Amino acid sequence: MDYQSVIARIYEEVKPYWGQGKTADYIPALASVDPRQLGISVATNDGALYAVGDTDVDFSIQSISKVFTLVMVARHLGDSLWKSVGREPSGNPFNSLVQLEYENGIPRNPFINAGALVITDRLISLYPKPKEAILEFVRGLAGNDDIYFDHSVARSERENADRNLALAHFMKSFGNIENDVETVVDVYCHQCAIGMNCTDLANAFRVFSHRGVNPFTGERILTASQTKRIGAIMATCGFYDESGDFAFRVGLPGKSGVGGGIAAYMPGKLSIAVWSPELNAYGNSVAGIEALERFTTGINSSIF
Amino acid sequence: MDYQSVIARIYEEVKPYWGQGKTADYIPALASVDPRQLGISVATNDGALYAVGDTDVDFSIQSISKVFTLVMVARHLGDSLWKSVGREPSGNPFNSLVQLEYENGIPRNPFINAGALVITDRLISLYPKPKEAILEFVRGLAGNDDIYFDHSVARSERENADRNLALAHFMKSFGNIENDVETVVDVYCHQCAIGMNCTDLANAFRVFSHRGVNPFTGERILTASQTKRIGAIMATCGFYDESGDFAFRVGLPGKSGVGGGIAAYMPGKLSIAVWSPELNAYGNSVAGIEALERFTTGINSSIF
Amino acid sequence: MDYQSVIARIYEEVKPYWGQGKTADYIPALASVDPRQLGISVATNDGALYAVGDTDVDFSIQSISKVFTLVMVARHLGDSLWKSVGREPSGNPFNSLVQLEYENGIPRNPFINAGALVITDRLISLYPKPKEAILEFVRGLAGNDDIYFDHSVARSERENADRNLALAHFMKSFGNIENDVETVVDVYCHQCAIGMNCTDLANAFRVFSHRGVNPFTGERILTASQTKRIGAIMATCGFYDESGDFAFRVGLPGKSGVGGGIAAYMPGKLSIAVWSPELNAYGNSVAGIEALERFTTGINSSIF
Amino acid sequence: MDYQSVIARIYEEVKPYWGQGKTADYIPALASVDPRQLGISVATNDGALYAVGDTDVDFSIQSISKVFTLVMVARHLGDSLWKSVGREPSGNPFNSLVQLEYENGIPRNPFINAGALVITDRLISLYPKPKEAILEFVRGLAGNDDIYFDHSVARSERENADRNLALAHFMKSFGNIENDVETVVDVYCHQCAIGMNCTDLANAFRVFSHRGVNPFTGERILTASQTKRIGAIMATCGFYDESGDFAFRVGLPGKSGVGGGIAAYMPGKLSIAVWSPELNAYGNSVAGIEALERFTTGINSSIF
Repeated sequence: MDYQSVIARIYEEVKPYWGQGKTADYIPALASVDPRQLGISVATNDGALYAVGDTDVDFSIQSISKVFTLVMVARHLGDSLWKSVGREPSGNPFNSLVQLEYENGIPRNPFINAGALVITDRLISLYPKPKEAILEFVRGLAGNDDIYFDHSVARSERENADRNLALAHFMKSFGNIENDVETVVDVYCHQCAIGMNCTDLANAFRVFSHRGVNPFTGERILTASQTKRIGAIMATCGFYDESGDFAFRVGLPGKSGVGGGIAAYMPGKLSIAVWSPELNAYGNSVAGIEALERFTTGINSSIF
Repeated sequence: MDYQSVIARIYEEVKPYWGQGKTADYIPALASVDPRQLGISVATNDGALYAVGDTDVDFSIQSISKVFTLVMVARHLGDSLWKSVGREPSGNPFNSLVQLEYENGIPRNPFINAGALVITDRLISLYPKPKEAILEFVRGLAGNDDIYFDHSVARSERENADRNLALAHFMKSFGNIENDVETVVDVYCHQCAIGMNCTDLANAFRVFSHRGVNPFTGERILTASQTKRIGAIMATCGFYDESGDFAFRVGLPGKSGVGGGIAAYMPGKLSIAVWSPELNAYGNSVAGIEALERFTTGINSSIF
Repeated sequence: MDYQSVIARIYEEVKPYWGQGKTADYIPALASVDPRQLGISVATNDGALYAVGDTDVDFSIQSISKVFTLVMVARHLGDSLWKSVGREPSGNPFNSLVQLEYENGIPRNPFINAGALVITDRLISLYPKPKEAILEFVRGLAGNDDIYFDHSVARSERENADRNLALAHFMKSFGNIENDVETVVDVYCHQCAIGMNCTDLANAFRVFSHRGVNPFTGERILTASQTKRIGAIMATCGFYDESGDFAFRVGLPGKSGVGGGIAAYMPGKLSIAVWSPELNAYGNSVAGIEALERFTTGINSSIF
Repeated sequence: MDYQSVIARIYEEVKPYWGQGKTADYIPALASVDPRQLGISVATNDGALYAVGDTDVDFSIQSISKVFTLVMVARHLGDSLWKSVGREPSGNPFNSLVQLEYENGIPRNPFINAGALVITDRLISLYPKPKEAILEFVRGLAGNDDIYFDHSVARSERENADRNLALAHFMKSFGNIENDVETVVDVYCHQCAIGMNCTDLANAFRVFSHRGVNPFTGERILTASQTKRIGAIMATCGFYDESGDFAFRVGLPGKSGVGGGIAAYMPGKLSIAVWSPELNAYGNSVAGIEALERFTTGINSSIF
């Protein structure tokens, strides 16, 4: 498969979608990003890397970080984790607080904000220096020590964190947050503010296409079974209230972020990261989803 | 892969789960089924068939029929269908009427009852003799002309159809049902009352593992792309409010019914049907899910 | 108190509100009513009657009929009634089906549609000829045998009854409807289609201002305690999701209908009916609420 | 009317209800109150005071304080207040966060916690020393300068304030909290911790039965119209999700608190305070509601 020409063609086809979405506007640091950027990086399991467009521009990975913290916690806690957070799609756009109330403070899955806050809370209980641990872990997966916290983004997130503070206090009222709420939200704001580029992200997702092994170090991060299971959560819950649509159109496990990034993978074959800052109404990258749909059509392959 | 010994072992391992669930009790015809039955049939893409247990006992396929009617309608209506019914997981156990109200009569997906009623309604608009058409279609997929409507089940369903009548009238009040409500519910009660056995069902799901082609006749029923997309809906929405958990534990696209049947498939490889009447709290077969989890673990393969 | 001049002044003050609402448009029979009409009738406990404007024009009382059927059922069933229907405000505009689902088919109160259908269902169980009984009862309260069912309105309601059919089937699935759903909805459509005028309505509400006694006949319809209690339900639930606002602005127990009528009363003092067809977003008469607010301000009296 | 003998009889009749509820247990300071206490104080508009039982024992007024802060804010802000908080009953026990989410951070009414936090927030904007202002205001209404903040209760509330912090942060995320969340919740915890006795409370509610005038000082606190309107909110929203039932059974505007107190009044006639610590499932005093139902029956008077 000539991946380079596939993604090069897709890059040209998808550029016309610029202007159809808008960048995240809830914090200035994200709103001010140049919207007309697009990068596509593909990392195949034979070690090759293909890239086109703005693949060396760092961006804020935002919710994609939820996958990394989930891995960090799941490998330590095992199945006991699933008593504190579910693994079902959340189902409706109003879910966050509503569902928490009906379901006694147990978030539906680790990729909605409430669930990610529980994961970060448990990570804080596990790691004495949680922020450092997260950064080190992501650097290790991506094989790049230059990955960093964008502190201006983190600060901006923290100043606009009322909704996340509400979620964390609410869950704490149900006994489902162990640590201090301010600390949990602070760490969470930092993980969302991780800056890295498309190629870093495709590399970091190799651990999934390699069924749990970090190919750079040979270290087994997750068992094959754990990898499959986290993949299943990505496939059913990775794209907010557009997860079903993403499965329908693209058919890969993956995760998006409001910074415009999307990371996905084909088990045993390849990982792929796409970045373009303009979002659709669900908070997913317009050009990113278009590119991924064309990619699985172009290589005639999906998990389905 | 020695599928026969894999499923024979699973059959023995799963039998001890008898007694942990209970048969559907909302209609007498289902409540009176002998609960201690278990059948597993596997149909591989090379044409082989493996079976163990009660695989020649007919049962009521119930919601599994929703897959067949979806195929019948989707191949005719194409993308326009998705204006009337979504393809997102429904998210919570109270969803049916609640979500319909919030979302103006558009059901979340074709596998919740509301969505299936819309599909059946459109099928009635497409086929002059809808019941006959459904039966003929399922017989053709399964390669078995003995498949039938269990009229006592259908009648019993019809007598206990208040919830479905409520759903259909509610959607009609939003303009999302085209035909007479009584007719829609009558056809729906019949499709749920289709009687067939595990082996029939594994055979009928070959169309999915064969990426849209009926291997018995060579007829293309769906395009490869349509097949992938219907598979994605099964993977995200096929198991009521346990869909995420099924993806997590089993990792195959599939569909369950309250008759105790589950049909699933591995794209390009095989289809599998499991039947055991006792259900868990979500309405899915206890032994069926256990068997499928062991199957994907046993053959070390899932879509993830 | 010179009631005649009070309501004459209010009539002039409120006429400028014409044009700020719109007539109910879900059935042609209501949509076609001349919107620029306004009638105000006051019946004081000393037997006097004051009227201004279009008080002799018959209109469709719609939901105001729910008060009359409640009285008919409550006097027979006593407290056992409150196991099947609550007496709490419903709280949100989406409540009907949502709350029924969360609360197992028990409607919040007898003045939301679901609750009124339960009341009508019980009335059918109590009276062999329910439609005739309702008409006779209302005629007796109002002291006017010319009150009638507007059959064209009833037919039109019946043809647009999908939402009410959904509610009734849904409650029947919870076991909270005793009779045939079609029959219940048919009777309900007739009670809503009662045609009477403002003066009839003010007269019919004398039973409440007279604390349970029909002053025309001297017959005790309700005990004083039952009267207080039904008044309490009117005060907290009588105006859909605007009940709190009506209490805040007007401060009288009462009931509105989408035909544009409102009936209310001051215990021990007077009853009042106002009619003007244009409705606000909550389904209450714009001019009617304005008139009643001015009335309680003008006579410097409310229940608060 | 011989109020003294009425309440003396009620006191004896209601004591047998001890043991049917339980004291609030979410903070130790409330859980440890001796449950078997009951006080009833009646203050008539001619200046008389009647008392029976434990009417000189101080208790924590909790949510009854919401009435006092509402008065403090409403008299300054007028109708503009109702853009930030509604005046409709909240409708369901899960309402707090659910409804806030559906209704964009505007609480349903000032007596649910969310609404009371908005009121306290505005009070902080209006008064430089909000805690002192609240205490001074309540002392002035009750004519008793010994009324105090129970600091151990306030501290205990503050330590268990996660739910209220969640509400306040959530509303702040919608822009409906002006001040620092911690400050708002701190003041709120103090107002709930006001310690006063039944007689103080009956005296403090004289301002309502006197239609807005503080009879001790002659000062007009609210206009007659404002008084009626705040009374309407008490009547429709004063008893959490039991407000309709309270109107049905008792028929007086009033407000309850989880400390076991209830204050109510009959416009132009009297105010009444009842206190007994054991609560029913809705958080209202079991003996308190029984006593008030018997009181309005005994004196044959309610607002309805």
